[in-house]
Amino acid sequence: MALPTHIGFIPDGNRRWAVNRGMGKQDGYAFGIEPGLQLYEQCKAYGIQEVSVYGFTQDNVKRPAEQKHAFSQACVHFAQEVMRRGCALLVVGDEDSEQFPAELRPFRQRQGSGIKVNFLVNYGWKWDLAGMRQGDIRSSDVSRLDMVVRWGGGRRLSGFLPVQSVYADIYVVDDYWPDFKPEHLDQALEWFSRQDRTLGG
Amino acid sequence: MALPTHIGFIPDGNRRWAVNRGMGKQDGYAFGIEPGLQLYEQCKAYGIQEVSVYGFTQDNVKRPAEQKHAFSQACVHFAQEVMRRGCALLVVGDEDSEQFPAELRPFRQRQGSGIKVNFLVNYGWKWDLAGMRQGDIRSSDVSRLDMVVRWGGGRRLSGFLPVQSVYADIYVVDDYWPDFKPEHLDQALEWFSRQDRTLGG
Repeated sequence: MALPTHIGFIPDGNRRWAVNRGMGKQDGYAFGIEPGLQLYEQCKAYGIQEVSVYGFTQDNVKRPAEQKHAFSQACVHFAQEVMRRGCALLVVGDEDSEQFPAELRPFRQRQGSGIKVNFLVNYGWKWDLAGMRQGDIRSSDVSRLDMVVRWGGGRRLSGFLPVQSVYADIYVVDDYWPDFKPEHLDQALEWFSRQDRTLGG
Repeated sequence: MALPTHIGFIPDGNRRWAVNRGMGKQDGYAFGIEPGLQLYEQCKAYGIQEVSVYGFTQDNVKRPAEQKHAFSQACVHFAQEVMRRGCALLVVGDEDSEQFPAELRPFRQRQGSGIKVNFLVNYGWKWDLAGMRQGDIRSSDVSRLDMVVRWGGGRRLSGFLPVQSVYADIYVVDDYWPDFKPEHLDQALEWFSRQDRTLGG
């Protein structure tokens, strides 16, 4: 089966998941960490070389303070735990902002070795592309994406790495992200292996 | 029903359609013109304000000469006919290349009035973004897309206006483009009206 080299993940639906269970919107994010670690282990076991994960964006920080605090904390915990388990971690996002968690500052340069994990934290597509005015996009250390998998049913990219996504096959899981199951990735990979990739040629 | 202001169309599958009918790959493009005119009339009748249509790309011109000739001719015919029917036509693509059809050169500036039609001809996402090095993307006269509809089953953007597509809802029709039916647009619009558009907020 033809495996993708680089997969992007958009773990959407945390707030809707929480509301469906009678919790506050902000309570959903904490339930997204363990699924993220499971998915990371699964990718590593399958020999995927690079993954990019949507943490939060410069659009997201317009949300209420308790949500902002919750998703920011969830991102810090996830990053620390994948680092502990061993990976080459790069955090991609605007660090010149108080929204950027101080704990993740060292990872604006890639640290560690193993599967490449690009984690988008306080990321913005405009911020990314604006780098071209100084020569290149700000996410230039992130390679072209073969596939993007999005949870939560939305059939859009929502500003996720627009340059790297130009040829990516987009697979949508209707389940909310905290309901992640390993079968989701298996189904996405099986689907991907059946796509005809021409890159426009 | 909430209508999109601006819809992008990726009319894919001409070659597969032709091969399925025992024709040469290059013969499919001519069968894509009439569906394009039908779709244009339908958008106009529904009051859609702006449409962007994928003609051909700088990747596509790597194809065999007879295919190149066929899709280039189909694009010229389509552009001339929508212009005759009345629209504000802008052709977006690299005109500093022999692949760019001379007949379309005047439309590198928007001409006419009515529904805005942005037609991507010898377009390249790299060419588009490279404009930022001089200040702005080269497709800066094209507004943000609300929805992208793609025929031919591919679940990807294939370099289609990456900046304008960042928040677009992507609707895929499995039928090949020459098999276009007005119901495809109706189903896409109905689906679009049920999407929750947050623009990341």
